[in-house]
Amino acid sequence: MYKAKAYAAAGATSSLAPTTIARRSLTSHDVQIEILFCGICHSDVHAVRNEWTEFLPTTYPIVPGHEIIGRVVETGSAVTKFKPGDLVGVGCMVDSDGTCPECQAGFEQFCPNVVLTYNSPDKHLGGVTYGGYSESIVVDERFVLRVPSHLDPAGAAPLLCAGITTYSPLRRWGVGPGHRVGVVGLGGLGHMGVKFAKAFGAHVAVFTTSPHKREDALRLGADEVVISRDAEEMQKRAGSFDFILDTVSADHDISAYLNLLRRDGQLTIVGAPPKRLEVPAFSLIMGRRNLSGSMIGGIRETQEMLDFCGEHGITADVEVIPIQKVNEAYDRLLKSDVKYRFAIDMSSLKAEEAKGL
Amino acid sequence: MYKAKAYAAAGATSSLAPTTIARRSLTSHDVQIEILFCGICHSDVHAVRNEWTEFLPTTYPIVPGHEIIGRVVETGSAVTKFKPGDLVGVGCMVDSDGTCPECQAGFEQFCPNVVLTYNSPDKHLGGVTYGGYSESIVVDERFVLRVPSHLDPAGAAPLLCAGITTYSPLRRWGVGPGHRVGVVGLGGLGHMGVKFAKAFGAHVAVFTTSPHKREDALRLGADEVVISRDAEEMQKRAGSFDFILDTVSADHDISAYLNLLRRDGQLTIVGAPPKRLEVPAFSLIMGRRNLSGSMIGGIRETQEMLDFCGEHGITADVEVIPIQKVNEAYDRLLKSDVKYRFAIDMSSLKAEEAKGL
Repeated sequence: MYKAKAYAAAGATSSLAPTTIARRSLTSHDVQIEILFCGICHSDVHAVRNEWTEFLPTTYPIVPGHEIIGRVVETGSAVTKFKPGDLVGVGCMVDSDGTCPECQAGFEQFCPNVVLTYNSPDKHLGGVTYGGYSESIVVDERFVLRVPSHLDPAGAAPLLCAGITTYSPLRRWGVGPGHRVGVVGLGGLGHMGVKFAKAFGAHVAVFTTSPHKREDALRLGADEVVISRDAEEMQKRAGSFDFILDTVSADHDISAYLNLLRRDGQLTIVGAPPKRLEVPAFSLIMGRRNLSGSMIGGIRETQEMLDFCGEHGITADVEVIPIQKVNEAYDRLLKSDVKYRFAIDMSSLKAEEAKGL
Repeated sequence: MYKAKAYAAAGATSSLAPTTIARRSLTSHDVQIEILFCGICHSDVHAVRNEWTEFLPTTYPIVPGHEIIGRVVETGSAVTKFKPGDLVGVGCMVDSDGTCPECQAGFEQFCPNVVLTYNSPDKHLGGVTYGGYSESIVVDERFVLRVPSHLDPAGAAPLLCAGITTYSPLRRWGVGPGHRVGVVGLGGLGHMGVKFAKAFGAHVAVFTTSPHKREDALRLGADEVVISRDAEEMQKRAGSFDFILDTVSADHDISAYLNLLRRDGQLTIVGAPPKRLEVPAFSLIMGRRNLSGSMIGGIRETQEMLDFCGEHGITADVEVIPIQKVNEAYDRLLKSDVKYRFAIDMSSLKAEEAKGL
């Protein structure tokens, strides 16, 4: 066991503040990682503020962060996949039972015994797991991912959650050349959805309520931008999309997007609006349309996604911040005031040590 | 043009009553059919009472009926597929443009110019099309189906709507041996869903609110019957179904059924509850579950279904009634007092003629 600097929240109304946490000594299958960058995911804010009480209540103190990029410092005796110096990533999960049908099929995210990167029972040290807002982490090699060394590490951090969350459904439903794809919402998830759909060869339309996002959407690769409040523009596109990726986690009218699908079209949600989605039966019956959900991706697919990003030079658009600005970043995130993801530069945490904090 | 006896409703609050309608003279591609039996579909009741005003308002008088079994009387000069004496069927559609992408792909039911069997503009005679509550009908051979001659014609009638409506989604989603399939609701559609899912080799569970339907569900082929109001029985089956066919057209809690699906499971609705379905986002995201709709089937698939029924001896369980009892049958249908479909014996309509009506 060793001590590591981190940022934690002591309660639902507390700011994140510097602290020291325990990390376990390496077991034979563990990898010790020096964290370079950690992305800020919307889920971090929900968890810190205990806003998902029904789904997953928060245990305090909480150290959030599941978009981790770092460098291997040391490896356990049985580790074969990594060596010191490797650039690696850790996403939303750090363990699973490995034996259930979900794990066997490569869907660790649906394992009944999955261990999330933070706020999950920690079988090694007791209490709960602590995430990536820290200088260091120890993770079983099965949940450590290779990161192509030429990718910008700050921009690569959000791939571990926002990246796989959007890559997985686009792949699952076979998005490719000749397909018309809609991406609803242009935030951390949406901007990755645009990049992937474009890289897969699809025609990409961005649906947004914010006209000022038009130029940026086109720069990111969108072929067209539709202001979703413009009923005429929406009506023009009725029945014309093969696939729609809905990244919006605020309440919104999903039937408006179902009606854009052609026969057998697929709408996949990756956000979780608080209220139940309201779906008119005829929107599904006419055209045999499909509505589905998706949640991150398994380890094998996450590695496939990172390798794809390496081949195609894909990273997230990030604003790099020192960890001392994390509370301010949370406030800005809630106002969508970020293009398109914050990445915390963890060297700023080491600097605090130097100041003797 | 010739006259045919029929039963029609003059308005939304009128009973069905005897009348005489015009049928067109045969064009070169037409088939004239003597109607033997016509099933009573729930849609007939909605249409007669003008309850789907937003979707499709009713033009009066209306002659309902789209589960038609009959015998070919005469064929147009260019007809190649049928000859007098053939046992044939007509379902929900009697024409489409034949040139749009939907028609080209065999999905005439989604053709923007589809002509429904009743209450659709009639391009031959003007006014609207008249359905199967009649002694005779003239239909383009493209929309006439071969019915295996050894099937009971009364029991075969509901195959043209209830049959294809349930067969199509089960086939589309590849239901077969090793699959656990749920059928929600045991009415006209549900009882056909049970027969088909069983014939495809699946394990079939019937979900019903009516404990008294248990024995009958087992007789129809169900492997288990679950009373859907029993929370404990439902919870026991969480995450265990590959496919669920929801045939209920009354408002109900669909999330209870979504939660029964395993990873990548599919729930398809074929009923259209009046209120919007309320879908919790997490029910879709956890386990990447799918919710879809389905509407009858194309002509090619309807023929495939009839051939399958011929090979496997599948027909609907029907209560045969004379047409003079049709209004009473409507009232009983709304109370689910039928096992499981009414089929009108159209010889009763001819008998009226004999009485000089």
